[in-house]
Amino acid sequence: MRQPTMRDVAKAAGVSPATVSRVVNDERYIRPETRAAVERAIAELGFHRNEIARTLRPGQAANTVALVIEDPGNPFWSAIIRGAEQIARRHRHMLVVGSTGQDYDQERDLLRDLVRRRVDGLLVVPTAHDHVDLHHELAGRVPMVFIDRVPPGVPADSVVLDSFGGAQRAAAHLISAGYRRIAYLGGDPAVHTGAARQAGYRQALADAGLPCDPALISLGNHTVEDAARSAAALLTAPVNADAVFADNNRICVGVLHAAAAHGEVGIAGFDDVELVDLLPRPVALITYDAVELGRQAATLLFDRIGGSTADVRRLVLPTTLVHRGRRS
Amino acid sequence: MRQPTMRDVAKAAGVSPATVSRVVNDERYIRPETRAAVERAIAELGFHRNEIARTLRPGQAANTVALVIEDPGNPFWSAIIRGAEQIARRHRHMLVVGSTGQDYDQERDLLRDLVRRRVDGLLVVPTAHDHVDLHHELAGRVPMVFIDRVPPGVPADSVVLDSFGGAQRAAAHLISAGYRRIAYLGGDPAVHTGAARQAGYRQALADAGLPCDPALISLGNHTVEDAARSAAALLTAPVNADAVFADNNRICVGVLHAAAAHGEVGIAGFDDVELVDLLPRPVALITYDAVELGRQAATLLFDRIGGSTADVRRLVLPTTLVHRGRRS
Repeated sequence: MRQPTMRDVAKAAGVSPATVSRVVNDERYIRPETRAAVERAIAELGFHRNEIARTLRPGQAANTVALVIEDPGNPFWSAIIRGAEQIARRHRHMLVVGSTGQDYDQERDLLRDLVRRRVDGLLVVPTAHDHVDLHHELAGRVPMVFIDRVPPGVPADSVVLDSFGGAQRAAAHLISAGYRRIAYLGGDPAVHTGAARQAGYRQALADAGLPCDPALISLGNHTVEDAARSAAALLTAPVNADAVFADNNRICVGVLHAAAAHGEVGIAGFDDVELVDLLPRPVALITYDAVELGRQAATLLFDRIGGSTADVRRLVLPTTLVHRGRRS
Repeated sequence: MRQPTMRDVAKAAGVSPATVSRVVNDERYIRPETRAAVERAIAELGFHRNEIARTLRPGQAANTVALVIEDPGNPFWSAIIRGAEQIARRHRHMLVVGSTGQDYDQERDLLRDLVRRRVDGLLVVPTAHDHVDLHHELAGRVPMVFIDRVPPGVPADSVVLDSFGGAQRAAAHLISAGYRRIAYLGGDPAVHTGAARQAGYRQALADAGLPCDPALISLGNHTVEDAARSAAALLTAPVNADAVFADNNRICVGVLHAAAAHGEVGIAGFDDVELVDLLPRPVALITYDAVELGRQAATLLFDRIGGSTADVRRLVLPTTLVHRGRRS
């Protein structure tokens, strides 16, 4: 007896094969009636989900999507890999990961190479440099979803964190704890997330009627060591910061090292940091579900691969302020 | 004027093109006379290293090597990615990364898929399950280097850590610090590194004339949470361990959480753990250069891709015992 194909199920349910694919793969944004019709057709044809799933995209050798990130060594990016991989596996695709090391030339070569190899779709964390032309060119050739940062004007879906809101909440927390000279330690200010976090920090200061002393702002910190050096300078004369907001987890680790040599220092940071809960000092962190960031981005991508022509979507994931560390 | 190719340089130097490639790429294990001859030929032909490097493998569309690891979320694996990527970039190859999640089916599908796609070479951290047949089959079709674990009997190069020696040194350190009931917390004992580390631990106990109480051995800890639960049980009655050796960094983080609820506990672990140096307790860690592990493995791989038919090589990288954390 012939195995029923996705087309048989689609015909019986009166929907497109792409819709069957989306139901089989448990995707969101499917009307309950549509889901019910497809599931009824599957049941009538007497086949299990998995058997249907195996018939998807028959004869195609590709079935690969690529994720292009900055640095696989950062727990933030590796959580995104895990999330994207879960969704890719569910869609029976292989996920390959390439890294840009924050270098635009590397990003361009990697993306062009992946498109030449005909991956089915791209998940991309763009580097700071806005090369809208490149992203425009590629977005016209292959489904593409941006993660964490959005190149302006490129017509592609994206998933980002609420950077402004998170940073604002963290800085407001330090102010309410009594700190008045709060330093901001960031990386490349041309990166959208960095700009948004610095704006959130400034907003919190403005809301509290505090002046924003330019001497308290340190940018260009790309490694733990950079951040430790910059924080040490900010915490001593003449700047004499009494607290620090760290733009990301690498910077936060550097700040923690620098602060260990000081007495009372208020510390808050964007991103979670492992073992901070066992440190003998309080640390406020802006956390979120990075695995979910990868999952949501991959879900949007497979929706496009499945043929969706919906308007460009931009999801903003919420953040949470948590209190880590122990008061000694 | 025609650009000189690698073959021109090889001819002038009286060596093989593979040797020129190795000199250009600054690889090790090249005799000084050979290096000098190649460099002289490059100088005579009036070309810079980089220009020669660009002529390598002309016309090839592939230029991809793949790294298959367990979990990109663990800093150990991400350091290996970084090291392998450095070498791949130097050879103008793209590195793609796939993960097995310690699942043999996933490993098999991924490896077969990569070979079908004609990657130029594979760097593989094999899962615990010994499927020598699979590795044998693939090693016959594509250059392959194993990292961290070695499937027995497969004729392929490998780079591993000195697991036995490192664990022995860590356990001996706990003994010399006065601990007598030292627990061993490990993962899957079928994994070669786990078996070697447990053997090193047992050797240290035997060397000190201490009995090895089976109640002190806890296996099957795969997550931070598993390890925290197991450590909490070992540190209380009836086992009453006074120290713990953690087989890897995930397990060590779990042990640190469990130990925070106890008084004096000796802790040692294999792998480095970020921020441990700021904790208010001493922790002894077995460290090594994981980036170098990736670099060495990729270097062996490109040597094979370049045509080397040398005997199968197994590099064992040394480990170091470091004292982290602070005495309160």
